[in-house]
Amino acid sequence: MSRPLAVVLLSGGMDSCVTAAMAAQTHQLALLHVNYGQRTEARELRAFREIAAYFKAQLILEVDIPHFRRIGGSSLVDPSLEVEDYGQVGEGIPSTYVPFRNGLLLAVATTWAEVVGAEAIFVGAVYTDAPGYPDCRPEFYEAFQRAIDLGTRPETRIRIVTPVIHWTKEQIVRKGIELGAPFHLTWSCYRSEDIACGLCDSCHRRREAFRAAGVPDPIPYANPDPSEA
Amino acid sequence: MSRPLAVVLLSGGMDSCVTAAMAAQTHQLALLHVNYGQRTEARELRAFREIAAYFKAQLILEVDIPHFRRIGGSSLVDPSLEVEDYGQVGEGIPSTYVPFRNGLLLAVATTWAEVVGAEAIFVGAVYTDAPGYPDCRPEFYEAFQRAIDLGTRPETRIRIVTPVIHWTKEQIVRKGIELGAPFHLTWSCYRSEDIACGLCDSCHRRREAFRAAGVPDPIPYANPDPSEA
Repeated sequence: MSRPLAVVLLSGGMDSCVTAAMAAQTHQLALLHVNYGQRTEARELRAFREIAAYFKAQLILEVDIPHFRRIGGSSLVDPSLEVEDYGQVGEGIPSTYVPFRNGLLLAVATTWAEVVGAEAIFVGAVYTDAPGYPDCRPEFYEAFQRAIDLGTRPETRIRIVTPVIHWTKEQIVRKGIELGAPFHLTWSCYRSEDIACGLCDSCHRRREAFRAAGVPDPIPYANPDPSEA
Repeated sequence: MSRPLAVVLLSGGMDSCVTAAMAAQTHQLALLHVNYGQRTEARELRAFREIAAYFKAQLILEVDIPHFRRIGGSSLVDPSLEVEDYGQVGEGIPSTYVPFRNGLLLAVATTWAEVVGAEAIFVGAVYTDAPGYPDCRPEFYEAFQRAIDLGTRPETRIRIVTPVIHWTKEQIVRKGIELGAPFHLTWSCYRSEDIACGLCDSCHRRREAFRAAGVPDPIPYANPDPSEA
């Protein structure tokens, strides 16, 4: 019997790449990438395509949602705002929070999952060891699950699966190594599209995770790791 | 003191037009239209623009979400499927149901509402007197409300308002007449973009509503009303 199908939201970063590797243990993959006007959109799309080829995905969908760039509200989509260095990120919600972005990504994933008959949506959201974006909270995913149950056909069954939501970034690296996840194809930097800056919050947390896991990060950085100075 | 801002999902049909008229009683309007590849997309967009001009909306946003046409799953977005006449619509969910469409529209509305500081999202969903799309159920909106509460900034407060969800189409027509809603600018037909067919489920229910309310429908139809034969 063939494996059931799962939609995986794959940004091209390390968390979603490891999530895809976990989904691949039990499911056929329907990989979904959304271009939402983020600064490193082109580089993330390249990472998505290379990772999708690596996993030999059953289905692939790329969706453009350009309105974020027009409405702004986040340094990740508004070029006039600055993406802070790791050390400059203060308390509260970082400037890189994109309003209800994960809600929108889940909604897109649900439309596709219902059409192709996927029984799950895998999301690589991380809450415990992450900057505290509200749309990464476990309770948010529980609420969205209920919206899916009520807002789709009665016979449709789609589970949201967030396998790494309570993990540390170090645990995610270790799981990825165990499963042979293609970290060399992933892209995490919030700022740059050629060589990862190594200084933004996302680069910093990635480097810290590899260091803690005791394995080398296979991608190059433009700047030395400030934590190793 | 100026009125608070409300995002209104405005398709260009009569239900959302009356909903906008109701929102205008208490709020400044941020009118949102989503082109999702529906058959009558261009005609609905024209209706949206004319209605937005009529209401002198404070803010206007048009968003393109073209992936539905690629993934299919509904006669409303897939030209190879037929939109049935009223009499041909059977039991269950009609072919015009677009998977989780309202979930996606709400997610887009939430992203915008959070950025512009709107305190409400008005949606002209009708459940009681409508074809039974799952994403028009009151419980679906309650669940989505919770997803919004949990998936946005702690200080963000956005209420979903569905003022006509339990109304008959006749009640909606009467309320629109009372508030001076511009029915002559609205578009309801699922099939045609020049003259409304008058035979699809959406045309049929609109004509029936005007007849029941005892007022003339200001738009012309290509076919006589079968109910009057």
